[in-house]
Amino acid sequence: MSETKAPLEFYFDFSSPYGYLASERIDELAAKYGRKVKWRPVLLGAVFKATGAAPLTTVPLKGEYSKLDFARSARFMGIPYQPPSRFPLPTQVAARAYYWLHDRDCAMARAFAHAVYRALFVDDRDISDLDVVLDLAVDVGADRAALAEAVESPEIKERLKAEVAAAIDRGVFGSPYIVCDGEPFMGADRLPQLEARLAGQEF
Amino acid sequence: MSETKAPLEFYFDFSSPYGYLASERIDELAAKYGRKVKWRPVLLGAVFKATGAAPLTTVPLKGEYSKLDFARSARFMGIPYQPPSRFPLPTQVAARAYYWLHDRDCAMARAFAHAVYRALFVDDRDISDLDVVLDLAVDVGADRAALAEAVESPEIKERLKAEVAAAIDRGVFGSPYIVCDGEPFMGADRLPQLEARLAGQEF
Repeated sequence: MSETKAPLEFYFDFSSPYGYLASERIDELAAKYGRKVKWRPVLLGAVFKATGAAPLTTVPLKGEYSKLDFARSARFMGIPYQPPSRFPLPTQVAARAYYWLHDRDCAMARAFAHAVYRALFVDDRDISDLDVVLDLAVDVGADRAALAEAVESPEIKERLKAEVAAAIDRGVFGSPYIVCDGEPFMGADRLPQLEARLAGQEF
Repeated sequence: MSETKAPLEFYFDFSSPYGYLASERIDELAAKYGRKVKWRPVLLGAVFKATGAAPLTTVPLKGEYSKLDFARSARFMGIPYQPPSRFPLPTQVAARAYYWLHDRDCAMARAFAHAVYRALFVDDRDISDLDVVLDLAVDVGADRAALAEAVESPEIKERLKAEVAAAIDRGVFGSPYIVCDGEPFMGADRLPQLEARLAGQEF
């Protein structure tokens, strides 16, 4: 019997282009080495308050470059990508919906997370809009009325705050931030290093 | 007769770990595709003033991670690396020396640049110190007295300021920043994308 290996932890914000790129590869990469992945949406706004950072695209010079790099990195990785017309945008509703779904049905939450990312970065939909979030959730099998009530509940708001605070305590300072056996890998561009680690390469 | 291809432009700061990693690969990578490389040291302090950014290692959370990532990326790329005890540190003397040497002997300047980077990131020497810079220059064949006088001259100070201003105008916001046929690639972690571009891959 093979030893059970710890899951990877995948922290991301639903408005993060590099988070989206990682989301399209992380499960397959982990599975290749017998790992599962815990998906943990966070809010970069709260994370940036802790680090004093600003959204990439608002930084002079870096902002223009980052837009070019999002699209080029997507093409390099062979992943569909269209620059969203609303960006960055608030993601708390989508993140709350994720955790509520996750507590009820892991697989449904995973399908929902993919749907949210693709809605934003492929179909240019406004994922900050409650109706869009509910539509995406219903498409993967969720109960619209129950979810609509849940995302406004104090419980789920507190739950998301606690998840974000725990992530910051953990050292999460951006998206995607992946933890493998306690070791952090930041950015979709660190997937090759993560894979080398999973493959047991010495470095 | 084959068409002459434009050289790559390689902007870097002598205190940048990712700049050092790129410096150990860029010439070989370019040569593989029939290109030369123009090396252009800049001062990240001036660049960061323009962008409002701060040295990576001073940013909460990100700072600790970046130290881990410098060393791990070096191992992943198979490049010797020791975290310097003084970091970050001023690099204007080294950069001025580079341009003065470059105007006299390109190959000597290139050897000097490698020597400065390796002195800092392999041998933990203080490259902000004039005597260290002069020692490194003498080792690659420079005239110590002439260089000592030159690095304090108003001409070379203006020259470096002009190079840094031109780089910022060009869009340089960090180190390394590599331009290939007008297209920017930021970071040692973009060398695979740069190579794919040089190889003519469609993406």
